[in-house]
Amino acid sequence: MRQYLLDSSFTGEQKKLVLTDKEAQYLTKVLRLKVGDRLLGRDRTGKPWLLELEQIGKSSCILSVSPLGEDETDVATDALPSYKGSYPRIFLYQCLCKGKKNETIVRQATEIGVEEITLVQSKFCVKEYSNKRDKGLGAQKERLESQIKEAIQQSGSPIPTHITDEILSLADIPKHWDNKGLFIFFHQSSRGKQQTLPQLLATVQPDAPIAMLIGSEGGLSDEECTFLEDAGFRPVMLKGNILRAETAAIYALSTIQVLLTETQN
Amino acid sequence: MRQYLLDSSFTGEQKKLVLTDKEAQYLTKVLRLKVGDRLLGRDRTGKPWLLELEQIGKSSCILSVSPLGEDETDVATDALPSYKGSYPRIFLYQCLCKGKKNETIVRQATEIGVEEITLVQSKFCVKEYSNKRDKGLGAQKERLESQIKEAIQQSGSPIPTHITDEILSLADIPKHWDNKGLFIFFHQSSRGKQQTLPQLLATVQPDAPIAMLIGSEGGLSDEECTFLEDAGFRPVMLKGNILRAETAAIYALSTIQVLLTETQN
Repeated sequence: MRQYLLDSSFTGEQKKLVLTDKEAQYLTKVLRLKVGDRLLGRDRTGKPWLLELEQIGKSSCILSVSPLGEDETDVATDALPSYKGSYPRIFLYQCLCKGKKNETIVRQATEIGVEEITLVQSKFCVKEYSNKRDKGLGAQKERLESQIKEAIQQSGSPIPTHITDEILSLADIPKHWDNKGLFIFFHQSSRGKQQTLPQLLATVQPDAPIAMLIGSEGGLSDEECTFLEDAGFRPVMLKGNILRAETAAIYALSTIQVLLTETQN
Repeated sequence: MRQYLLDSSFTGEQKKLVLTDKEAQYLTKVLRLKVGDRLLGRDRTGKPWLLELEQIGKSSCILSVSPLGEDETDVATDALPSYKGSYPRIFLYQCLCKGKKNETIVRQATEIGVEEITLVQSKFCVKEYSNKRDKGLGAQKERLESQIKEAIQQSGSPIPTHITDEILSLADIPKHWDNKGLFIFFHQSSRGKQQTLPQLLATVQPDAPIAMLIGSEGGLSDEECTFLEDAGFRPVMLKGNILRAETAAIYALSTIQVLLTETQN
């Protein structure tokens, strides 16, 4: 564990934190931290905190909390040198895949440092979610949240990745995105002349949010592509093989992050 | 399945192929191909062939084989339009990871279109292979080969990805690579001023082979990095989070492929 992700109830006012059950056990039994040991904390806004183990009880422990600068974050128990520069603000819209694939994608996107993940219902999604009365992520939400927490703790990512509560219908993406900036969707059909990914990314300002949409196993339909283009979103067809959905998501995400960090910072 | 990967015994001379057992069942029972159905074949050199189902027996089937141009490959049963341009020649040297991770990496690297994969024993590999009398991949080889076959068939990759029979010790990489071209290794320590990935890749000629090395879960040691630099290999530290080994491999690979295809072709 490179850092400890603080609970969403943490406001920044608390000077002490009491952890119980699983959380306490993880720190004291699994990581075997002792009284006086320090670790890096990260709150849900991405702010770093210095945590020090003050007291160990039978099934609980107490941590003291004090503010920390971003350049003092090497207090982590597993203190590998880490990148301290800025991160591109990437928003991932991911069409729902089968079974565990959603978890794999969410986990890897968190590791890489995506700011927000929104799951999308599109035409070729194998599973139909939109008919359900409850459009929320339901039981899956908890599993996805725990993938995110684990990925943030293990990777030491300073980006507090957040997942949208509701599953979005593809038709509602433009309203949800609300013209916040460049929106790229990846597709496999030929759609006339289009700009390359490096060309599109060259127009992005360092702090501007950027969104990407990845299809499900079946990709995006022609009608969906036309709808997205009409909404002002930019199509990109990468020069390479047709990848499985979970590989495609990481492929596109990695490329966008590297193109932005290596050319802008 | 987007294409059928021909057995390594196929020389290009045969006009008919007899498939038996599992292979025959896959085509006739799983894909439910009928007599007269055509599919795209790919041999181990990457050459495409037109296959036509001629006869279906009880536990076998016969395919006729005829030559095919690379621009006629849309005969596939699952004929999504696919990229027909050239691929960068990427050679992946991957330090051995735990358990199933090697399979995941090999599978995804094949999907993406790596030319050759070589597994490497490095200092921080959790599992020690070098003490074994048999340095070959042993039982794992068959599983990895079947991951490769499945990935080629599903992705329709025109690159006949090949895995080196022997596990290489990190010290033997320079001899194995034999100065074939640019060799990049990814690391997490600070090693003085170095060129960025786009800068390094800008020097690569379109047809030149390029190699990349990815560490195991524990990364590469400082001594290993120094050794690789002394051998003329180029260190790259990407600006981002510390990724798990299997994410790191795909992250680096995706980036290299896109930087090369989007700027060169």
